[in-house]
Amino acid sequence: MEYNKLVALIQDRKSFLCVGLDTDPNKIPAGISLLDFNKSIIDATRDYCVAYKPNLAFYECLGKEGWEILEETVQYIGNDHFTIADAKRGDIGNTSSYYAKTFYETYGFDSVTVAPYMGRDSVEPFLQNPGKWAIVLALTSNQGAYDFQTFSDGKSALFEKVLQTVSTWGTPQNTMFVVGATKAELLEQVRKIVPDHFLLVPGVGAQGGSLEEVIKFGRNKDIGLLINASRSILYASSDPSTFAAAAAKEAKNLQLDMARITGL
Amino acid sequence: MEYNKLVALIQDRKSFLCVGLDTDPNKIPAGISLLDFNKSIIDATRDYCVAYKPNLAFYECLGKEGWEILEETVQYIGNDHFTIADAKRGDIGNTSSYYAKTFYETYGFDSVTVAPYMGRDSVEPFLQNPGKWAIVLALTSNQGAYDFQTFSDGKSALFEKVLQTVSTWGTPQNTMFVVGATKAELLEQVRKIVPDHFLLVPGVGAQGGSLEEVIKFGRNKDIGLLINASRSILYASSDPSTFAAAAAKEAKNLQLDMARITGL
Repeated sequence: MEYNKLVALIQDRKSFLCVGLDTDPNKIPAGISLLDFNKSIIDATRDYCVAYKPNLAFYECLGKEGWEILEETVQYIGNDHFTIADAKRGDIGNTSSYYAKTFYETYGFDSVTVAPYMGRDSVEPFLQNPGKWAIVLALTSNQGAYDFQTFSDGKSALFEKVLQTVSTWGTPQNTMFVVGATKAELLEQVRKIVPDHFLLVPGVGAQGGSLEEVIKFGRNKDIGLLINASRSILYASSDPSTFAAAAAKEAKNLQLDMARITGL
Repeated sequence: MEYNKLVALIQDRKSFLCVGLDTDPNKIPAGISLLDFNKSIIDATRDYCVAYKPNLAFYECLGKEGWEILEETVQYIGNDHFTIADAKRGDIGNTSSYYAKTFYETYGFDSVTVAPYMGRDSVEPFLQNPGKWAIVLALTSNQGAYDFQTFSDGKSALFEKVLQTVSTWGTPQNTMFVVGATKAELLEQVRKIVPDHFLLVPGVGAQGGSLEEVIKFGRNKDIGLLINASRSILYASSDPSTFAAAAAKEAKNLQLDMARITGL
């Protein structure tokens, strides 16, 4: 999906919500298949979000059946939502090329999350397909982010070095960065380094990040944010007859908050 | 696989060779299936190596058929070789738990390669199963290693900080580190920080690293090295009638060199 289309979707739906499809066999209502659960969640939230983000771990652990569910889920989403393979890949160049092929061609995703540890030749293969995006980890939402991402040379922390460096390898049309909502106070620093890039922001909802603060410190002229919620939407109700309606309500509330706070 | 069994295999076979199964549909001889290719390579190299390392990218890109080939390949390897899922995973805790389950339980691997960028809670789920191992990226063999892995606070480079920190999360019985053969001169520094851990060393062969130097600077009292070769073995010949014999010869030469240099 091209940058302009994503921006237009955000304007049309007055939303920059991404629904994380962390579909957990142990948490979905009894008696419903994973694929049917995903389809119900997608139907319930379609009008309130602009992106879906399947978390690959939850599909891989099921073996080949999981990959079938993933494939059918991506097809079911269609072309009017931005799709993110939350896969945290990254390897030497010829290997990263195969990962890019996997997610862009085999499964048809618009984007893949990428870990930057291995550097330029591990990221570049994800930047070479028009309309496809690398979403590179910068400052993640978990406690472990402080182990290495804030390691500093006295001038920059590692996550700032990643933003500075990776932003020169691509453009705001093919690169986004992951910045966790639980560290919203650092979004101001992030925006000084990458004013024009989209940021994928996990951590609102179950992980406790504040939507108001993320928008305050993170928005740019095109909004420039995809704010992800997973568990708070997917598992809003465990009742097989009401989970979809509960998910719709959660997603709609987030959409309304987004529209209100930004004036979209 | 337990530490002691791995050390015993190394002693018995006078080898610490790992064969990387980067099985590339575009490079294998015409007229042979990927699974049959893997089986032929395994049969040809079994006596000369102690480990096999399928590179997940090459299987994932084939969709669900690729995962079937992976599953059958791991089964075919059996229990007398250490198996490594070269997957470079790492995500927030509940997600990493699912990746650990995928590779340890669904596919039965002994170990997974893990990217350390997201810190402690992204690595620990890989350390909680007896006989299973996290192999954490420290200093990789590619050019991009210099982008972030050598970023320094003036006392330590990031890869040293990773070695120092991650080695306190587990033990030499459940944690290894990736250190590229193309940076053999840094192995001395690595060994000062982690004298007792196994190191997985890619980059000998096609990438140009020196076996002699890796052994000189990297070995410890139990050898403590798994040296990987992929392309130089897999694609030693592209002739369908001789590729297996050519792979066996390459692997045997490496084994003989290892025995000679170490006096095993």
